[in-house]
Amino acid sequence: MRIVVDAMGSDHCPVPDVEGAVMAAREFSPQDRLILVGDQARIAQELSKYDTANLPIEIVHASQSVEMGDNPTQTARQKPDSSMLVGMRLVRDGYADAIVTAGNTGAALTLATLHTLQRIRGVRRPALTSLMRVENNQLVVMADLGANPDAQPEWMFQFGVMGSLYAQHVLGQTRPRVALLSNGEEEGKGNQVVRQSAALFANSGLNFIGNVEPKEVLKGAADVVVADGFVGNIMLKAMEAVGEAFFRVIRRELLSNPLRILGGFLISPVLRKIYKQVDPFEIGGAPLLGVNGVVIIGHGRSNAKGIKNAILQARRAVEGNLIEAIREGMARYISQHGAPTESAKPRRRYFARRRHKRIKA
Amino acid sequence: MRIVVDAMGSDHCPVPDVEGAVMAAREFSPQDRLILVGDQARIAQELSKYDTANLPIEIVHASQSVEMGDNPTQTARQKPDSSMLVGMRLVRDGYADAIVTAGNTGAALTLATLHTLQRIRGVRRPALTSLMRVENNQLVVMADLGANPDAQPEWMFQFGVMGSLYAQHVLGQTRPRVALLSNGEEEGKGNQVVRQSAALFANSGLNFIGNVEPKEVLKGAADVVVADGFVGNIMLKAMEAVGEAFFRVIRRELLSNPLRILGGFLISPVLRKIYKQVDPFEIGGAPLLGVNGVVIIGHGRSNAKGIKNAILQARRAVEGNLIEAIREGMARYISQHGAPTESAKPRRRYFARRRHKRIKA
Repeated sequence: MRIVVDAMGSDHCPVPDVEGAVMAAREFSPQDRLILVGDQARIAQELSKYDTANLPIEIVHASQSVEMGDNPTQTARQKPDSSMLVGMRLVRDGYADAIVTAGNTGAALTLATLHTLQRIRGVRRPALTSLMRVENNQLVVMADLGANPDAQPEWMFQFGVMGSLYAQHVLGQTRPRVALLSNGEEEGKGNQVVRQSAALFANSGLNFIGNVEPKEVLKGAADVVVADGFVGNIMLKAMEAVGEAFFRVIRRELLSNPLRILGGFLISPVLRKIYKQVDPFEIGGAPLLGVNGVVIIGHGRSNAKGIKNAILQARRAVEGNLIEAIREGMARYISQHGAPTESAKPRRRYFARRRHKRIKA
Repeated sequence: MRIVVDAMGSDHCPVPDVEGAVMAAREFSPQDRLILVGDQARIAQELSKYDTANLPIEIVHASQSVEMGDNPTQTARQKPDSSMLVGMRLVRDGYADAIVTAGNTGAALTLATLHTLQRIRGVRRPALTSLMRVENNQLVVMADLGANPDAQPEWMFQFGVMGSLYAQHVLGQTRPRVALLSNGEEEGKGNQVVRQSAALFANSGLNFIGNVEPKEVLKGAADVVVADGFVGNIMLKAMEAVGEAFFRVIRRELLSNPLRILGGFLISPVLRKIYKQVDPFEIGGAPLLGVNGVVIIGHGRSNAKGIKNAILQARRAVEGNLIEAIREGMARYISQHGAPTESAKPRRRYFARRRHKRIKA
């Protein structure tokens, strides 16, 4: 197995990116490969800090890197040799099985969807998918997390299909429970998109359990939670915000007098346990589902642990044959529902191809 | 000042409703009145538990009560003598200045908007508005919290106008900062409704500061946060869910061994302080903005403290002349933008009036 790591992805690149890769490589078998893509000199310098003698790590040079402020739709043209794009080409051309990047999410989405891996046949919109650890240590697949702010019901349904396949093939769940995120559990609750999507889910072969509210999500009522990109993003950010605010307040208050410092010390295992649940780097990254290759997008703020966990997540996706499963799922979908009409718009495809060629040249 | 309390509102009515009214009445001056509406015998029995000799409390009998499972659009017809409807008629007819209910939110919305108080002229959709206490003890007005799941940009703009007037006239803020809840702060982020609403806000006299993410909301970056009813509801519920999950986990873990029990005891003031921030009953209820009267809707699970705080919130709204302020604000709005077209649909008004009459008779 060969996994590409965009060494120029995170906010503090290449430090955590390289360290995370080293940590992950220690858990790899000798026939596996970790390919660090980015500025050769800087990567080599970072690598020299670690004992990498027997680790299966390679470097592929890329002279440019995508910044957080770069316009996603322009990066392919403006930075044809960015580490992200070079890394994705390695996956597209079969030199690697997966890519992990903690860089600009919009750019990763655009480069993967339009310029390198392309959508899997039948997929209307790739979905950004997050894994959340909820009570009882259960992992919940959340899609979409922001790639599609104004999702249509059919896209939402496909998010559910792909999320369900992810839960089966990567998380090992046998019959994942799929639910729609809503403001109430009763049928008929939700906004228009949710209600229309529910109708599509109801007539599908998925194990659809209806609507869930955020509190049910945290209790593990569903294995796959579907939302449009805007709503999913707001929910995730709201949850993160409360977690962060809580730890900010507790840190400030616990240090305010000696008795509290002692109390804080005594309960520190509890706080660590809770922190582990809200720590986004415990899981690593968000898989981009619906493109022809495993893409895991990490938080820009990722630390080495976050990168390492994202790499291990990519490994599980490759081991679980995720892409093949989604291809088959979508082929079944097309045979039942017909090919999606939208992706066949000639103008759009023409431009996508032209851009693609120009970059390759 | 006369404030109606729907004594049959909360899940455990009339116990917390009556106790909360008694607690609030102790802070009222003798010329004020608290009017408990509901089953006379049960209210009197509850009241007999307290020393109410000198408290300005009255009872108005209502033979029916709205249940949580009742269909909001049917309650007016099916329960013409419900405590909620009777209470709202008291406000409409000038016998009271405000109503507090912890009953069915949808029913309160429908009864107020279509059957009793009616919308203030110019208001497209009344908004359910929540107050959140964020860092530095600042109060933030959030609208809409669920009354309008598929809000149009013009409604969103009006939520901002009404929320801003609430912040000025009830919370005493001089120039409230109004923001749109979004998945990113940059202009152009958000879904279609958010982007279109932003254009309306930008050209208004409001102190519009752009988009805010949930974490900025918690840091107090804005005084009024506008969202459509679905998104606002999801955010609020996500925040509540994390708060609840946190206290559930910490309670379980703290009791798991003696050292942790001691630690928990030492830091209990900290936990209480944090809990107070996430406790929905600290604030009391959500004002329904845009109807001709002060309506405060409490959580169904409200305890006595929640009811009391909702009543005090109603008092502040009456003291601040909130309704008059919104009427003036909307009159200005009409003079600038013209009367809203939608509310003039003849069919709709006809039915609304007919229903209204039938109930009165």
